Amino acid sequence: MRIDEMTAIQFCKAVENDPLVIIPLGATESHGPHLPLGTDTFQPEYIIAEVAKRCKNVLIAPTLPYGQHSTARNVPGTMDISFDTLRAVIWDLLNALMRHGIRRMMIISGHAGTSHMVAVTEACREVAEEYDVDITFFSDFQIADGYKDVPKGDGHAGFIETSRMMHIRPELVGAERPKGSYKSFGFKVIGDASECMPEGVVGDTKNSSAEHGKNINEFIIKEIVRMIG
Amino acid sequence: MRIDEMTAIQFCKAVENDPLVIIPLGATESHGPHLPLGTDTFQPEYIIAEVAKRCKNVLIAPTLPYGQHSTARNVPGTMDISFDTLRAVIWDLLNALMRHGIRRMMIISGHAGTSHMVAVTEACREVAEEYDVDITFFSDFQIADGYKDVPKGDGHAGFIETSRMMHIRPELVGAERPKGSYKSFGFKVIGDASECMPEGVVGDTKNSSAEHGKNINEFIIKEIVRMIG
Amino acid sequence: MRIDEMTAIQFCKAVENDPLVIIPLGATESHGPHLPLGTDTFQPEYIIAEVAKRCKNVLIAPTLPYGQHSTARNVPGTMDISFDTLRAVIWDLLNALMRHGIRRMMIISGHAGTSHMVAVTEACREVAEEYDVDITFFSDFQIADGYKDVPKGDGHAGFIETSRMMHIRPELVGAERPKGSYKSFGFKVIGDASECMPEGVVGDTKNSSAEHGKNINEFIIKEIVRMIG
Amino acid sequence: MRIDEMTAIQFCKAVENDPLVIIPLGATESHGPHLPLGTDTFQPEYIIAEVAKRCKNVLIAPTLPYGQHSTARNVPGTMDISFDTLRAVIWDLLNALMRHGIRRMMIISGHAGTSHMVAVTEACREVAEEYDVDITFFSDFQIADGYKDVPKGDGHAGFIETSRMMHIRPELVGAERPKGSYKSFGFKVIGDASECMPEGVVGDTKNSSAEHGKNINEFIIKEIVRMIG
Amino acid sequence: MRIDEMTAIQFCKAVENDPLVIIPLGATESHGPHLPLGTDTFQPEYIIAEVAKRCKNVLIAPTLPYGQHSTARNVPGTMDISFDTLRAVIWDLLNALMRHGIRRMMIISGHAGTSHMVAVTEACREVAEEYDVDITFFSDFQIADGYKDVPKGDGHAGFIETSRMMHIRPELVGAERPKGSYKSFGFKVIGDASECMPEGVVGDTKNSSAEHGKNINEFIIKEIVRMIG
Amino acid sequence: MRIDEMTAIQFCKAVENDPLVIIPLGATESHGPHLPLGTDTFQPEYIIAEVAKRCKNVLIAPTLPYGQHSTARNVPGTMDISFDTLRAVIWDLLNALMRHGIRRMMIISGHAGTSHMVAVTEACREVAEEYDVDITFFSDFQIADGYKDVPKGDGHAGFIETSRMMHIRPELVGAERPKGSYKSFGFKVIGDASECMPEGVVGDTKNSSAEHGKNINEFIIKEIVRMIG
Repeated sequence: MRIDEMTAIQFCKAVENDPLVIIPLGATESHGPHLPLGTDTFQPEYIIAEVAKRCKNVLIAPTLPYGQHSTARNVPGTMDISFDTLRAVIWDLLNALMRHGIRRMMIISGHAGTSHMVAVTEACREVAEEYDVDITFFSDFQIADGYKDVPKGDGHAGFIETSRMMHIRPELVGAERPKGSYKSFGFKVIGDASECMPEGVVGDTKNSSAEHGKNINEFIIKEIVRMIG
Repeated sequence: MRIDEMTAIQFCKAVENDPLVIIPLGATESHGPHLPLGTDTFQPEYIIAEVAKRCKNVLIAPTLPYGQHSTARNVPGTMDISFDTLRAVIWDLLNALMRHGIRRMMIISGHAGTSHMVAVTEACREVAEEYDVDITFFSDFQIADGYKDVPKGDGHAGFIETSRMMHIRPELVGAERPKGSYKSFGFKVIGDASECMPEGVVGDTKNSSAEHGKNINEFIIKEIVRMIG
Repeated sequence: MRIDEMTAIQFCKAVENDPLVIIPLGATESHGPHLPLGTDTFQPEYIIAEVAKRCKNVLIAPTLPYGQHSTARNVPGTMDISFDTLRAVIWDLLNALMRHGIRRMMIISGHAGTSHMVAVTEACREVAEEYDVDITFFSDFQIADGYKDVPKGDGHAGFIETSRMMHIRPELVGAERPKGSYKSFGFKVIGDASECMPEGVVGDTKNSSAEHGKNINEFIIKEIVRMIG
Repeated sequence: MRIDEMTAIQFCKAVENDPLVIIPLGATESHGPHLPLGTDTFQPEYIIAEVAKRCKNVLIAPTLPYGQHSTARNVPGTMDISFDTLRAVIWDLLNALMRHGIRRMMIISGHAGTSHMVAVTEACREVAEEYDVDITFFSDFQIADGYKDVPKGDGHAGFIETSRMMHIRPELVGAERPKGSYKSFGFKVIGDASECMPEGVVGDTKNSSAEHGKNINEFIIKEIVRMIG
Repeated sequence: MRIDEMTAIQFCKAVENDPLVIIPLGATESHGPHLPLGTDTFQPEYIIAEVAKRCKNVLIAPTLPYGQHSTARNVPGTMDISFDTLRAVIWDLLNALMRHGIRRMMIISGHAGTSHMVAVTEACREVAEEYDVDITFFSDFQIADGYKDVPKGDGHAGFIETSRMMHIRPELVGAERPKGSYKSFGFKVIGDASECMPEGVVGDTKNSSAEHGKNINEFIIKEIVRMIG
Repeated sequence: MRIDEMTAIQFCKAVENDPLVIIPLGATESHGPHLPLGTDTFQPEYIIAEVAKRCKNVLIAPTLPYGQHSTARNVPGTMDISFDTLRAVIWDLLNALMRHGIRRMMIISGHAGTSHMVAVTEACREVAEEYDVDITFFSDFQIADGYKDVPKGDGHAGFIETSRMMHIRPELVGAERPKGSYKSFGFKVIGDASECMPEGVVGDTKNSSAEHGKNINEFIIKEIVRMIG
């Protein structure tokens, strides 16, 4: 099910069934004082592993653990690749899969920054415009946002992410339960966008819990399973 | 020790000690009938984890599991990124680390294809030319090649890699023990370079064993530990 | 006030006062059966002319009447430039202004497509990261959306745009009052995204009126005047 | 007739007749002490509007008011885009038109700098090499130069341009009637090429008049009408 | 005097005198039925060798025998590099020379096509804008054109080039003395621009002679010697 | 036989026989205290001229005398072009030849630096992947290395190159017979790689002789003649 654990022969056999290949798109990004830098990697990896268990005919590509970052770019620990680099990587990977006969591809990103999402979308669109393939792309955070108990204005390293990480990798979650908000500069373009997130956190993590996390993760998994059909 | 498992605060503290950051550079590449597609990822990941245990002050960045491939590009299962993309990713990652104060960086690649190595080297050199930082780059395969018991002409998916994988991830190694050789076209530039590796394997895997693998891995680890000093 | 109507000498004198330069960013895009292709050009041009009348020390740069389009790209009449081209034009123009001593710049776009906005934002950010200048960027549509009487789900060529055009250029507005909606494909990346807008219109234009248009335009103008301070 | 004033439906109908689309290519460039920065925009816009009145089946695309500048680049008021950006914009626009079925395209540039002209030509040529379309490109200044009464050595912001602007937009023409000449540095490549135009004007504007301007404009219009046939 | 014939030590010594480095820019281009494809290489090479004999302190860089071609691109024998490639090569070479302390550089091109000249000029200008160096660039054909006895309308592979080659490399000049003219398509952009030169020759070669060639070459040499001062 | 000495008509005739075109790829690079900067140009030029004499149906393209350099980049006299530029030139030249019907191409490089070789290889491979043509690429140094009397560890400006130049252009070889070695920095990426070659020479030139040079050159020529078949 994990492409990196299959031999070429097993991969060939799997391709005969017209499988869906999911590419986990992680990130290495500062996530408040309490969450690990790999938060946006661990979340989609967990979700995708569960989805693959519940759906037939799904292959998981190796995780790309780097994305494009604007707000957190200058915050210690963020390892970003540029817009153009991210777009190029995704384009290359989709084309590599197509070269081997894959016709159904899904990219699930942990990070959901606007430019990051557009970089990936542009690569996907370029491929979708040229070839008759089925490409789906979203961030699991976009889905999580639809979960019923999410406090208003929750965002980066907030209630959702803290809860989900408490469920997925509790040993990596620090004791702090910070609270912060996105500081708007209106439409001003900020050179060092880290000023927009003075606390490094958007939302109140006070009520985060592993149980909420489990529910949110389950909510996301079910939604994706439904989507795959 | 793993950057993705550290919080931003832990990362900051670690940076104060002028740590060495090691970036594992994996690959997703066809590796004969018997080895998994992630062979070039699992090998450096294992080695680097061991190195980090034995050296102080080492941080491990998230693994980039994709590289540039020429020979195996068209062989099923290979997911390659282009020369330019690989060069760009590495350039971005080195610059991201430097932005946060890292001055010592090491990239260890599982894959050792010539173009792949040059793509990474070019990115490293560009950075080294401009900044006063310490960058080291090699493939663990280059070191493995110095191990005493390696049969002559061993290469891709051969004795070394089979033995090492039998030690690292035995459950992923198939029962086949193929034998093959690199088919030289002299200096002719081959459009589909997979013709150069008709059996998908270079070397004879007959005598591969977990014990050899353990020894080779240990040999590599010691060499890198020595290198770090 | 309009840069293209000033001589070099008048421009120099104006620069001494540290003026705000506004770049109108238009678009040439299919806008339903009833609105002209220049809708996204005429709207910000009108707004900006009014803003410049009410604020001191504002210069208006020539309108760039082309933007990046995804959804309407294949719909007849859309003349698009690519993401990379748009980003390059904006970067060039900001740098040209800075070369002549301008330190305060505002870009107001009629079109508000996500990729289009990111292309411009990326160019602005690159400049803002490197230089100590004041750059503001938004679409007047983003502001219009805050107007009280906007029907829910109004969008491209809908109530807002129809009303505004009935106020600004009534002679260019056709008699049709179409109704349409955005057809979601979820997270699927659509090669020909025009499928997402089967009627070419998002929203119900039935209640559009020049009066509403006047009010919305006034609402936007006041907001921008307030923003400029 | 103006694409930005047509609806998509009107545009579609117009395309059925295999129309000629003219793209006015303006510029925002210092033009001596007396002419407005938009001189190279106003001239082709005027000409093209007249041509379209006298020819059937002509559509006018929105004016691109920015070009590439070498000599005037550093002179206050010049807003330039780079060679590569200009080439990209033109390529994009020609392709956008072709996507909608346009097969006859004409670009008329107000500015006539050598690099500027080559940037546009290279884009046109790339398209003409690949597709069977009819592309024409020139500067109206190239035609004006053939007018009988032009003083020898007339050029940038000189007799021709002053006269033409006195006819087209007299209210924007200042009272000065400067005289200047191109200062040759032979084949030396000058970093700041504004040294080549110390007075900012090439030629003697003393005898400029609206009547001359009218005649020159008429001369150009007739020539283009003849060209279109 | 020829850089390729000097050792690094001789080069270093020469640099101490602040020498002028001349880069011969040749071309490999169809030149009518009678002239060799290297005509645009042999001409500047000859001229530059003579200039270097008569001036002190001149170094000759190795000839780049490839340029950008539009008209002759599709004519058999033309080996062209693209606009961007040519620009990049020239930029690289100027920077390489500057890295070693060269501050005076001259590029003399045999080919004089407009785009070719602009490609080189753009590279030179970029360098001249950034560094305080002395760069001169021209085609020897531009100078030859000033020779008194040149028939009107002489151009590619015509009287000038035939005569010059009869002087420089008579054994390479065929017996034909063709006559041809540039076929103008007005401002139409021609996909295959070879249509513009149906005879492959512009001008009448009837009166070409080695003596004329000798005189023209001498005329050019003297002019360049004068230029260098 | 030399393309630059052929007319277009002679070239056309030659193409009818499906000739092999050899592109000599030289370099302008510091070569110790005793060898000229054009050493890597003179060597392949000599070899190729001899090969062409002994084989039928071979055309020699004009020499490109510039390559990519890492180690010698900062050593006085080296004129390098970048990796990307070199790749682009080669791609352009191969495509130009193919446009005129050439289907068999060979590139012989004097310089054999790893990145340089990969830059050319990548261009060749891109062409070979897309078209059914026959491309061969190597450095004559790679072949020379197989000559029987080469001292161990001989390299840049060492025994082989000194001997070969003593045979080819004895008048350009200085009296020094330096000795030096490659200073390894292991896997460290060195910003100024000239540190790796402190003496500017790799090997001992003491026993170099014109006779050895003649033998080595003959060895190479025969090998290439054999290769062409």
